[in-house]
Parts: sequence; C-alpha cells; structure tokens
Amino acid sequence: MGDPVGSRGVVSRRRGVEKIVVVLSGGVDSATLLYDLHHRGHPLKCLSFDYGQRHRREIESARKLAESVECAHVAVDLTSLAPLLAHNSLSGRNCEIPEGHYAEESMKQTVVPNRNMIMLSIAIGWAIDLEFDAVAYGAHGGDHAIYPDCRPAFADAMSTVAGLCDWRSIALRRPFIDLDKGQIVRRGYELGVPFELTWTCYNGRQRHCGKCGACHERKEAFATQGLCDPVPYEEEAVEG
Amino acid sequence: MGDPVGSRGVVSRRRGVEKIVVVLSGGVDSATLLYDLHHRGHPLKCLSFDYGQRHRREIESARKLAESVECAHVAVDLTSLAPLLAHNSLSGRNCEIPEGHYAEESMKQTVVPNRNMIMLSIAIGWAIDLEFDAVAYGAHGGDHAIYPDCRPAFADAMSTVAGLCDWRSIALRRPFIDLDKGQIVRRGYELGVPFELTWTCYNGRQRHCGKCGACHERKEAFATQGLCDPVPYEEEAVEG
Repeated sequence: MGDPVGSRGVVSRRRGVEKIVVVLSGGVDSATLLYDLHHRGHPLKCLSFDYGQRHRREIESARKLAESVECAHVAVDLTSLAPLLAHNSLSGRNCEIPEGHYAEESMKQTVVPNRNMIMLSIAIGWAIDLEFDAVAYGAHGGDHAIYPDCRPAFADAMSTVAGLCDWRSIALRRPFIDLDKGQIVRRGYELGVPFELTWTCYNGRQRHCGKCGACHERKEAFATQGLCDPVPYEEEAVEG
Repeated sequence: MGDPVGSRGVVSRRRGVEKIVVVLSGGVDSATLLYDLHHRGHPLKCLSFDYGQRHRREIESARKLAESVECAHVAVDLTSLAPLLAHNSLSGRNCEIPEGHYAEESMKQTVVPNRNMIMLSIAIGWAIDLEFDAVAYGAHGGDHAIYPDCRPAFADAMSTVAGLCDWRSIALRRPFIDLDKGQIVRRGYELGVPFELTWTCYNGRQRHCGKCGACHERKEAFATQGLCDPVPYEEEAVEG
C-alpha cells in the first residue's frame, strides 16, 4: 500500500515534526488516524466530545484507544449544548435513530447542527493553548452528501479561518480525505489498530445494532477489504 | 445621528425580517446591539457563555438585559473548556488581570484562545436548529490588534464558513464594525439602553475596577461622548 498520509503533506510543514491535536470520536476513522499519526512520530493529544449523543459510549472507546498508544486524552463536556441542538436524532431525544443507508432521506435526521465547526473550533483553541501546530480529523472521501459540514468547500473554509484565528496559524489536517472507508480500514489493519475497541453505532446499546447508517457503512468497509470486523452485532446475538 | 445598522444591510436580505441569534456578553457593545436589533423589529434570541471567566457576573448582566426587552436568553456552560484554554488571565487562574490600556503588551494575556470562533460556532448551530437566519455580534471598529480573532480577515473567513456549514446559509452580522466604542455608547444612549445593567470589567468584583483595559476603554467611550457612565467604580468607593 502507498503512503496516503505523507502524500497529503502532514509532515511537510516541518518545524521539527508537527505537534497535533487529534479529534478522536472513537470510531474506525479517527482510531486509524490516531495510529497513523502516532506511527509517524507526531507528538499527539486527543480530544473527544460529549454533546449528549446517544452513542456516548464512543467516548469510552476513544479513551481506551488513546491509552493504547499512551496519548493524553481529554473528553469535553458539551452536554449543555444539547438543548440548543435538539432537532436531530443523535443528541435530541424526541426522534429515533433511522435504519438504512446514509443515502436515504431519513438519515438527514442525524445531522447535528454545525457539529464539525463546534468541535474543530475547540480543538483549535486547545492547539493554540498548547502551542501545537495542527488539528487533525478523520474526514474521508466517503463522507456523505447529507452532512453539509463534511463538504470539501466547508473544510477548505475552516482551514482558512484556522489560519487567521491566532497570530500563529493552526493547520487543519485531513489526511484521509482521498480515501474511502474501506481503504481506511485496510490502513488501520496494517497499523494494528485494535478495532475491537472502536465504537461506530448511532444507537448506544450493548452491541452495535448493525442497522443504522453508521453500522451499514462499517460493515461494508470491512467486507470490501475481506477483513473480519471484531465487534459483535445485535443480529449475531439473536442468531446465536 | 445616522443609521449605522441599516447601512450595513442587516435587514437587506429580507425573507421577511431576519430572525437573529444575538451573542450577548452583557457589555456595552452587545447591549446596544440587542437594543438596536430589537428596535428594528427583529425576532431575537440571546446567547451567553460561561467559559470560566473571572468576570462571569457579566452573564447575569446579559440575563437582565435580555429580560428588559423580553427576549429569550440561554447561558451555555463551557466551563469544561477552561482547562484547555488555561494560559490566559481571563479564564486561567494562574495569572492576574493586567492593568492599563489595551495597547500595552501585557494585555495579550487576556486573549482566550479562539474564543470568538468557539462562541460563533455554537451560536450558528443554535441558529440552524431554530431555523433562524443570522447570528449577530458586537465586533466594532475599535476592536484591538492584540486580539487576532477580532481582525476583519478573521471575521470575513467566519462569514464564509457560516455560509457553508448547513444547507441553509447562516449570515454573520457585525452591524457596528464601522463604529468606535464612543459611537456605540452614543447609539445606545439614544436607544435607551440601561447601561447600569451592563458589565465590562475583566475583574469580576463588586464594582468595576476602573484600571483594566476593558474599564479604561469603557470610561473613555462615555467621556468622549460627554455622557455619564452609570456604573460605580472601585476608585469612587475609595474616594467616597
């Protein structure tokens, strides 16, 4: 396999090696991002967000993943924002998580208003305070048209604003932007990412539901690579 | 006096009258902004932030100001961010508030990393959730070179990103950008802003200290307009 991260220039802006705040959700993409940047020798600190999401157990996954590479990890409590961002099924409590693929209209319910800008703005603030060089996040080529703040134009505008918010410019790194989720899983497999620690499902139950858009996509990503997904799914429990 | 707000086009992008989330710190600028937009008939909701600032009593000022025009007001608890943004004298506890004018080097201690992007991103998220049209904040022409996120280039970049973060563009309004603080005080006086309710001082004691950069600027603004500042200052208490 090639070198997708290096080719995006993560270490190209050398002042030594970039020090990076990693936005770590605890899912497959950010777990692989963490391992990739760790593998390349970047000093890292990890940041997660509790915004009242149903699947807040992903934060515990993030903590374990950070611990597995001996990185500092902070989980920020943004639950006071939940009443402001209530009309969605991830952090709101008046609607159910829809089943099916991301492409379907109902998945628009899972858009948390301006989530990416809020998370990135806090990560950038921390990077400034730490005198770090960059913030990295796991946006990838498969990110979905239903999420307006996954669009490349949004990400480019965020990069511009991150360059202006302090006297010392903070870089935004999206090293997986040209990969699809299957390629990220492949990269993570090669890096030894402990995928059994990751959490993807939008429902925050004991096991992954296997039916929400996030689960569908995860299962497809492993399947296309011919790799085994180590997390248990609810359907398997029923079958067994 | 002219019509500085109208001339900046606050009501020009009519879908009816714009519904606006107002970032309300509880100081002179945002109080005047609230009264100005209320006077123009905009449906408004007000948003304040507790980020662990010493002068968090400004939030109580904001609440009273919103109440005085019968606007909904929400104060968001961001105190969990304080450890991430610790190396400043507003929310950090290991350094003192410097005395003197903004221009002085020591005032750089009062820069809270990326505060404006964090606040605006949350306000934008709420505006999306409310199906409002815009976010307004009280940036003005006198905002200081020591604050990188008060630069026009930063504000322009934020406007771009606010236009891309959702399918329905959110406008960022800075109607006072061409005014200095004296002109804002004058406008507030004409609108009947209850300045006795506002809070400016970076020290959060019983009275305004009169010595920090924020107090210096406030006193000068009233003085240049020949207006009386109704808030009591510590120095007066000593004198009396």
